[in-house]
Amino acid sequence: MESTDNYSKVPKVVIVGGGFGGIELAKKLRKADVQVLMLDRHNYHTFQPLLYQVATGGLEADSIAFPLRKIFKNQKNFAFRNACVEGIIPERKIITTSIGEIAFDYLVIATGSDTNYFGSKELEHYTMPMKTIPEALNLRSMILQNLEEAVIETDPVKKAGLLNFVVVGGGPTGVELSGSLSELKRHVLPSDYPELDINSMNIYLIEGSPEVLGPMSVKSQKDAQRFLEHMGVIVKLDVRVVSYDGDKLALSTGEEIISENVLWSAGVAGEVIAGIPKEKIARGNRIQVDEINRVQGYSDIFAIGDVASMITKDYPHGHPGVAPVAQQQGKHLAKNIVNLIQNKPTEPFDYYDKGSMATVGRNRAVVDLGKVHFGGVFAWFIWMFVHLMTLVGFRNKLVVFVNWMWSYFSYDRGTRLIIRPFNRKLMTEDTAQK
Amino acid sequence: MESTDNYSKVPKVVIVGGGFGGIELAKKLRKADVQVLMLDRHNYHTFQPLLYQVATGGLEADSIAFPLRKIFKNQKNFAFRNACVEGIIPERKIITTSIGEIAFDYLVIATGSDTNYFGSKELEHYTMPMKTIPEALNLRSMILQNLEEAVIETDPVKKAGLLNFVVVGGGPTGVELSGSLSELKRHVLPSDYPELDINSMNIYLIEGSPEVLGPMSVKSQKDAQRFLEHMGVIVKLDVRVVSYDGDKLALSTGEEIISENVLWSAGVAGEVIAGIPKEKIARGNRIQVDEINRVQGYSDIFAIGDVASMITKDYPHGHPGVAPVAQQQGKHLAKNIVNLIQNKPTEPFDYYDKGSMATVGRNRAVVDLGKVHFGGVFAWFIWMFVHLMTLVGFRNKLVVFVNWMWSYFSYDRGTRLIIRPFNRKLMTEDTAQK
Repeated sequence: MESTDNYSKVPKVVIVGGGFGGIELAKKLRKADVQVLMLDRHNYHTFQPLLYQVATGGLEADSIAFPLRKIFKNQKNFAFRNACVEGIIPERKIITTSIGEIAFDYLVIATGSDTNYFGSKELEHYTMPMKTIPEALNLRSMILQNLEEAVIETDPVKKAGLLNFVVVGGGPTGVELSGSLSELKRHVLPSDYPELDINSMNIYLIEGSPEVLGPMSVKSQKDAQRFLEHMGVIVKLDVRVVSYDGDKLALSTGEEIISENVLWSAGVAGEVIAGIPKEKIARGNRIQVDEINRVQGYSDIFAIGDVASMITKDYPHGHPGVAPVAQQQGKHLAKNIVNLIQNKPTEPFDYYDKGSMATVGRNRAVVDLGKVHFGGVFAWFIWMFVHLMTLVGFRNKLVVFVNWMWSYFSYDRGTRLIIRPFNRKLMTEDTAQK
Repeated sequence: MESTDNYSKVPKVVIVGGGFGGIELAKKLRKADVQVLMLDRHNYHTFQPLLYQVATGGLEADSIAFPLRKIFKNQKNFAFRNACVEGIIPERKIITTSIGEIAFDYLVIATGSDTNYFGSKELEHYTMPMKTIPEALNLRSMILQNLEEAVIETDPVKKAGLLNFVVVGGGPTGVELSGSLSELKRHVLPSDYPELDINSMNIYLIEGSPEVLGPMSVKSQKDAQRFLEHMGVIVKLDVRVVSYDGDKLALSTGEEIISENVLWSAGVAGEVIAGIPKEKIARGNRIQVDEINRVQGYSDIFAIGDVASMITKDYPHGHPGVAPVAQQQGKHLAKNIVNLIQNKPTEPFDYYDKGSMATVGRNRAVVDLGKVHFGGVFAWFIWMFVHLMTLVGFRNKLVVFVNWMWSYFSYDRGTRLIIRPFNRKLMTEDTAQK
């Protein structure tokens, strides 16, 4: 068993995952009389809301990630381990990991969510996910490799397949990704690929429900759709994917699209750790927690953020899987863990919804703040400001700001490099890196 | 055969490689009545002099690379293909590539150089090279992974192996890399890894000749060595590597160093393309060229930069493998190709040596300008200015500048992320990506 308890008298809080929730929790425990151990399979925090800009060549990967050790470098009661968690043994109060067994007094599962293919091995194999930095970089490589291939392809059907881009799922990620692809098509590719007829490049957005941006206001939904269509994205609503073999995408309408570029953003599922009983797992593979984020049936195991499902009057299906929920739950749980240690009463979690937003492209975003809605340039500036401020680290803020200003005035994308070539069709479970 | 000659009346100049030489050549042919086709295995130009900063977490990979298509986006007689060249068939005037056969009227080999292990398969397998961006990123991952492992390692010998860093080769790359590692050790790691006794981390620089920075002035050599030693680097001169099995490095002095981090910068070899007769290959695997960079024995095949060896009175072993030589040869060859097409006399190449420089660390660099030598802060500012100005693209200059200013004032490195874990020992030829 790995020994990190040099001062083992104080309770040990083990946090699995360095996302928005895990970070807030660990920060707020700074002055508590506990020992905090954070585990993550990456040595960095990923700012997921901007992954699509990494995938489409607008930002460097390094500017939306931040080393976890650095965030906590002055926090004396904090330790970090770069490890994968394999399972929980609740009765022994330990977790098993890639670096051995680790004991806990309080365990917090903050593992977030992964792409949900709804059980389809075919879709998992052939479509591209975008939940991590390696996945975003793979997507970037694939897009650019297929454009390079299209240049030399003489067979018209194969060429069409290389130039058709299909984004499945009309949530914020799908909207932002398809909008960003359309800007790549209009502003960057014509000068980079004079050999290609850029009009033969098509961008589809496929959504199963009757509108894009499901949880947002009707006005935002309509605005976003209008923006996308104005930018040349072919939006198909009320349509589901039936099958995809890497070349041909079959839709529920009977239509087929030839495409080698299918980007999957149609759903997420909680990343549950083995050892949590099946009956505690709710819809979307989320762990059922009580009003203080405690996993039902345990006194010392908690879950926060995307992986947790807390049923309340306002949120009968659990809270939305967004950063503010994770952050607020992390903050709140820190207080409750201290309360539990001190035998004080705990306080139920209450989500304060600050609003939601999505960007479609240059000067085009939608923002819902309570009953107030903005769409267009002003919303776009709000979106940029909020995202810049939420990024961890001053250097990251600065580099992202420089890149955004650069793109804004030059209509250009800085970083369209194929650093590691990628071939999803040849990928095996062994070579898949998350 | 791939057809790119839509206007096939004008001579076709095929350039293999988008390094400093290939880019200058293609640029200078902008107004010539030729068709230019550039091939490169990457879709970007790499600014190799700053690779060590990518490897040690100071810079993003994307800020020292530039998409080749973008450099030439307004050049009408230019086309780019992302391809690997497999061989030359001089008598048919074609090259074979990963995307098919390509015909040429003039062929320019500008493939640069690769790491030279002097025939040792063992060193090639176990040590880390740093000639490309994927290699620099692998190196970054390995350094950080080994530090993470050292945190949890309890065996003192294994722990020493994880914390000993050995740079082999005291040229500019080796000096810059070992200096940069020492800054990482002093300014970044103590706060990031409070669990490690940072004094148990040792950085060695091993050089076979009696001095570092071989081709520079004696004063620069002495200054650089003094700077390194002052920064805590253990410099071993007149020492050669006898063997390395991934754990133990045996030196010609009989000494052994336990290390899992051996960085190989002890030599380069020209990246010759198959089809060039062996008798045309000189020392360092460079192709023998005449005074206009023409491969001896051919009228239409040329080589420039690191891969070319032009013997002159001033350079009896060929020119140094540095960017200015490649750039000047590229520029000069453009003129001579036009002369050849127009049946005008060609002009022999003459290298104008502007001087050389190397940086050791913060405020410490050495610069030789003819007989004038600078060492220290002023040299460091010259070094930064020259490198910033030589970087391709305004966005890259800006992002690198922001990062350098950030590091200067904060004593920090922005980008110490393990984006793709790396294990050299498990690497096979198939998984090696250059």
